[in-house]
Amino acid sequence: MMNKLITLQSRPQGLPTDETFAVKEAPVRQPEENEVVVKSIYLSVDPYMRGRMSAAKSYVEPYRIGEVIEGGGVGEVVESRSEQFKPGDKVLGMLNWQLYSVHNGSQLRKVDDQVAPLSAYLGVIGMTGLTAYFGLMDIGRPKAGETVVVSGAAGAVGSIVGQIAKIQGARVVGIAGSEEKTKWLTEQLGFDAAINYKEEADLSAAVGQACPQGVDVYFDNVGGAVTDAVMNHLNDYARIPLCGSISAYNDASGKSDIGPRPYVKLIKTRSLMKGFVLGEYMDRLPEGAKALGQWLSEGKLRYEETIFEGFDRMPEAFMELFNGSNIGKMLVKVD
Amino acid sequence: MMNKLITLQSRPQGLPTDETFAVKEAPVRQPEENEVVVKSIYLSVDPYMRGRMSAAKSYVEPYRIGEVIEGGGVGEVVESRSEQFKPGDKVLGMLNWQLYSVHNGSQLRKVDDQVAPLSAYLGVIGMTGLTAYFGLMDIGRPKAGETVVVSGAAGAVGSIVGQIAKIQGARVVGIAGSEEKTKWLTEQLGFDAAINYKEEADLSAAVGQACPQGVDVYFDNVGGAVTDAVMNHLNDYARIPLCGSISAYNDASGKSDIGPRPYVKLIKTRSLMKGFVLGEYMDRLPEGAKALGQWLSEGKLRYEETIFEGFDRMPEAFMELFNGSNIGKMLVKVD
Repeated sequence: MMNKLITLQSRPQGLPTDETFAVKEAPVRQPEENEVVVKSIYLSVDPYMRGRMSAAKSYVEPYRIGEVIEGGGVGEVVESRSEQFKPGDKVLGMLNWQLYSVHNGSQLRKVDDQVAPLSAYLGVIGMTGLTAYFGLMDIGRPKAGETVVVSGAAGAVGSIVGQIAKIQGARVVGIAGSEEKTKWLTEQLGFDAAINYKEEADLSAAVGQACPQGVDVYFDNVGGAVTDAVMNHLNDYARIPLCGSISAYNDASGKSDIGPRPYVKLIKTRSLMKGFVLGEYMDRLPEGAKALGQWLSEGKLRYEETIFEGFDRMPEAFMELFNGSNIGKMLVKVD
Repeated sequence: MMNKLITLQSRPQGLPTDETFAVKEAPVRQPEENEVVVKSIYLSVDPYMRGRMSAAKSYVEPYRIGEVIEGGGVGEVVESRSEQFKPGDKVLGMLNWQLYSVHNGSQLRKVDDQVAPLSAYLGVIGMTGLTAYFGLMDIGRPKAGETVVVSGAAGAVGSIVGQIAKIQGARVVGIAGSEEKTKWLTEQLGFDAAINYKEEADLSAAVGQACPQGVDVYFDNVGGAVTDAVMNHLNDYARIPLCGSISAYNDASGKSDIGPRPYVKLIKTRSLMKGFVLGEYMDRLPEGAKALGQWLSEGKLRYEETIFEGFDRMPEAFMELFNGSNIGKMLVKVD
């Protein structure tokens, strides 16, 4: 069986390009005792992967040049030497950017497409939904009646953050980059207001107008000028979960991430800001999965996916994340 | 009895000047039932007062034009219509920038100059010591063996922060603005290293060299370029109590507080940053006072004071805070 995989050919300076990636073919190795072979069905592309393409130290190891790009996926067991899995089982795991992968069974989790569509295990009830849940509930801690602002609000994480905040009784304002997105937030997801940051000459004033009671929680996925604008409207004791800073990820020089320092504002409002990743909540995943699954089954959570068809389009799908072309979770359906 | 008081004449743009203040005279009003008249002995000048001279919203009300400048002090009861106080009692309270003040007894706390010198109730065992204690212990949470960096390290708060961190078993690095200060930190207070930021061409490299294991706690009193340099060396899960940002307080335009945004660094290290003021810990003051008093009596805490003599020098003493001319707590001895 021939495998196809996408490797990191070179570390990007600025935006990734076609030069960043290489497609390789190699035979799938035979599974050993307790191992299974999985055929990829959906593979995930996520903004955090940009960080791993750089050599800089971060919370996960950088990808290595010439090796397959790591990432989550959902697939089907096609060969098994493990007692826990049989061919046909659907599984979630680090399938990486490849058609087939060989795993020790302990690294995989069985998923049930009767409970939720397979793709949802990568999104609303998977990594991005759980990231939204823990960042908002553990750091943001919204209370009924408070105002929650979410940047990157139409993305896989932001769209879930806003809906969870609504479930908590908060007033929710989303910031996104197109009218299609802001309409989706207010008309489909129940956000109280949404701002298209690309159309606002004075973004800070727009945030002030959308948040007449100020901002109690700011869930940040983008950083940069959007965050500068929100920081002008913090209420006392605001909480700011820092989930992502996508505006800065492709900055090769580091120089464009210059802006107002937030320190005085944080002191004056006695606010809390914390960077986080889902990995910090490994021992609480069942709690998050249970809550998300229940809200989903009760119809309280809606989600959207942007799905590119065809394995070869993985680099394209990944690069489109930085053009903001996705609504909801960005996925590649392998074939 | 004639009183002398210093009022806010105009809101400063940038550094306060003589125009900021006016000296007035007025008779001391007669105490009513339960009131006492206090003669000021030591009055406190603190960087946070700069914030109250601006009209902008913050955690305390702005000072009002034409009214006495509010602040803490230690004095002696000279007339009493309260059963709780008798003439000669030494008291701590909001005596404000004036020779005499009239108080309801409930607003004052008796202090004992046999337990500690009167001036210490404004510093090491008073507001600045307690600020150091709660910011470090509640937000910074240093563990033995960790590296704690303190900016404004020779100031009233910073010098106590570093010593408490040493008591907790941390390695402590101070950043201050003169060789006299850095020598005092390492030779008198037991800091492991100290950096004179005015003499470093590459401050970030100097921090890196002084912190070979990275920075676990950064207690920030100054903000600006000093903070930028420290942020390059955060360890995973660093904690950053934001106590002050003196480098930005006198910036009239707001434009000079532009620098590297910290968001990506906070995410990569999953660090926590929180602005705080002592007022958040009102219900825990006895805990802090007990710990500070005990360490002081055990000889584990040393402190310095810079004392200007003469009530008329209050504005000068206040303005000197921003020149960095004080070591330890800045006070005015009234006469």
